[in-house]
Amino acid sequence: MRAIVYQQSLSYNPRQPEPPPEEGDTLIRVRQAGICATDLEIVRGYMTFAGVLGHEFVGEVLDSPDRSLLGRRVVGEINIVCGRCDLCVAGLCSHCRNRSVLGILGHNGAFAELLRLPAANLHVLPDSVDDDRAVFVEPLAAAFQVLKQIKLDGRKWVTVLGDGRLGLLVAQVLQTAGCPVRVIGRHASKLALCDKWSIRSRPLNEIVPRHDQDVVVDCTGSPQGLELAMRMVRPRGTIVLKSTFASAAPLNPAPLVVDEVTLVGSRCGPFREAIRALAENQIDVVSLIHRRMRLEQGVEAMALADRPGVLKVILSVE
Amino acid sequence: MRAIVYQQSLSYNPRQPEPPPEEGDTLIRVRQAGICATDLEIVRGYMTFAGVLGHEFVGEVLDSPDRSLLGRRVVGEINIVCGRCDLCVAGLCSHCRNRSVLGILGHNGAFAELLRLPAANLHVLPDSVDDDRAVFVEPLAAAFQVLKQIKLDGRKWVTVLGDGRLGLLVAQVLQTAGCPVRVIGRHASKLALCDKWSIRSRPLNEIVPRHDQDVVVDCTGSPQGLELAMRMVRPRGTIVLKSTFASAAPLNPAPLVVDEVTLVGSRCGPFREAIRALAENQIDVVSLIHRRMRLEQGVEAMALADRPGVLKVILSVE
Repeated sequence: MRAIVYQQSLSYNPRQPEPPPEEGDTLIRVRQAGICATDLEIVRGYMTFAGVLGHEFVGEVLDSPDRSLLGRRVVGEINIVCGRCDLCVAGLCSHCRNRSVLGILGHNGAFAELLRLPAANLHVLPDSVDDDRAVFVEPLAAAFQVLKQIKLDGRKWVTVLGDGRLGLLVAQVLQTAGCPVRVIGRHASKLALCDKWSIRSRPLNEIVPRHDQDVVVDCTGSPQGLELAMRMVRPRGTIVLKSTFASAAPLNPAPLVVDEVTLVGSRCGPFREAIRALAENQIDVVSLIHRRMRLEQGVEAMALADRPGVLKVILSVE
Repeated sequence: MRAIVYQQSLSYNPRQPEPPPEEGDTLIRVRQAGICATDLEIVRGYMTFAGVLGHEFVGEVLDSPDRSLLGRRVVGEINIVCGRCDLCVAGLCSHCRNRSVLGILGHNGAFAELLRLPAANLHVLPDSVDDDRAVFVEPLAAAFQVLKQIKLDGRKWVTVLGDGRLGLLVAQVLQTAGCPVRVIGRHASKLALCDKWSIRSRPLNEIVPRHDQDVVVDCTGSPQGLELAMRMVRPRGTIVLKSTFASAAPLNPAPLVVDEVTLVGSRCGPFREAIRALAENQIDVVSLIHRRMRLEQGVEAMALADRPGVLKVILSVE
């Protein structure tokens, strides 16, 4: 099959072997896949992954032990879990000790014609969520995870750092929760989207950090984001970290101690809430699409997605 | 007066000017002062402080606008606050934007014959808390702060990283709260204290981090502490950071994100609870005293306190 593969370098492989069947797996034909910052970080060495990239997708079920899924349009949770380890038993399945992760850790991903996932990972899409929207379910769920992890009641000063793909989703999710959020970013075109959504925004170069924000959500994807968040958050405030990247940067955590800041790492989130929000048109994801490219153009598409100012690049698998 | 002064270098000054009176201040004759890791870090450049060092003390009130304090034996909270800024008004006085901090930030400290603090900072000691115990009130309050910041209920696997002065106080405080705490440290003599208190302990070199601790309290005072804590804490677990130090170290916070860890910075704590715990003999601080030295020996005493394996060095001011 055709696929975009990372193995020391990134390439298009027209003869990638199809994913071998495993017991209980569902076979899915990918319709569209989205390129995410994590994909770009993997190419920089994050997670030392090798294989078919991609974890944001919408597809159609070709074969499944769950016959009700046949022919259905689905999205899929990315953690393939054991269900038996201490963390699975404790209800923390997304942290399963024996997990593999679609296109990230030990499991071939979605930049391909076909992928396999357990039936339990799949969510059938309502017709009201078309493919262009459905491909955003996974990152939108990650944005909803912020609401699961922190209490917003009474928090008036909330900043999303970063106007990239994830930052603009997090900002919209916080807005739907009634939070008076503000986005800080570098790109006029992206901050203009905030205007369109009636979300306040400011260019990064106009910001003077004043240790006055109740909550700062770091979606910069860069080591500098946390450092800036530490200067923006108020004493006893909260920083939510959404960024993962391959490189380490020098950090002195003393300000976290002195200011008694709470820092919360945040990763995958609830698919159901993301699908519902899209079905109810609460979140505008279509404006985030920068370009659609064919799977065969995946290497160029990754380079495009890595350029400053570029939002979502979608791979169409025909 | 006699004092230990840090001004680019550390020295004993027999002719340090007495602290000038300020409106509302109480004048205190210091009886004993304790040397803390923060003092040692200041000498390495932390907080760029210059002046009389020291913030852990017990003393006697010589003069005060509050006449009821005259002649009383007191300890003192170290943050000198404005009472008017947004954080003071919000009840976060220890984070006052205009604060000075005894012996740490813009206010001469306790390694001296005399110091001045606002009367509101002082706590009169009961007779049951003698000077040797009283000098531990400030660090013990900082240990009690951990209980204020995290919920321990149902958390079975709790590790204190570091068997230093603060680590051994935090471990005892967690134990009094009914928490099955374990201490990880480098020094057999300190871990033997844990045995005495029926607190479990393990030498650092026997530890294999397994991402299985519900809570890890980092009291190592070193940049490596956080990195180890990140490998010990379980997914969705909590790291409490108590360490401040002058240097930055390379850190990739990605594991905090992937494991959705909560990291809580923790600094000063409740004096009342510390005094009560000492009055009720709940915490053994006397075993932490490594040596008593005279104020005049303060430079040597600081060098001694900086040696591996040395616990509390107390300066007696006669």
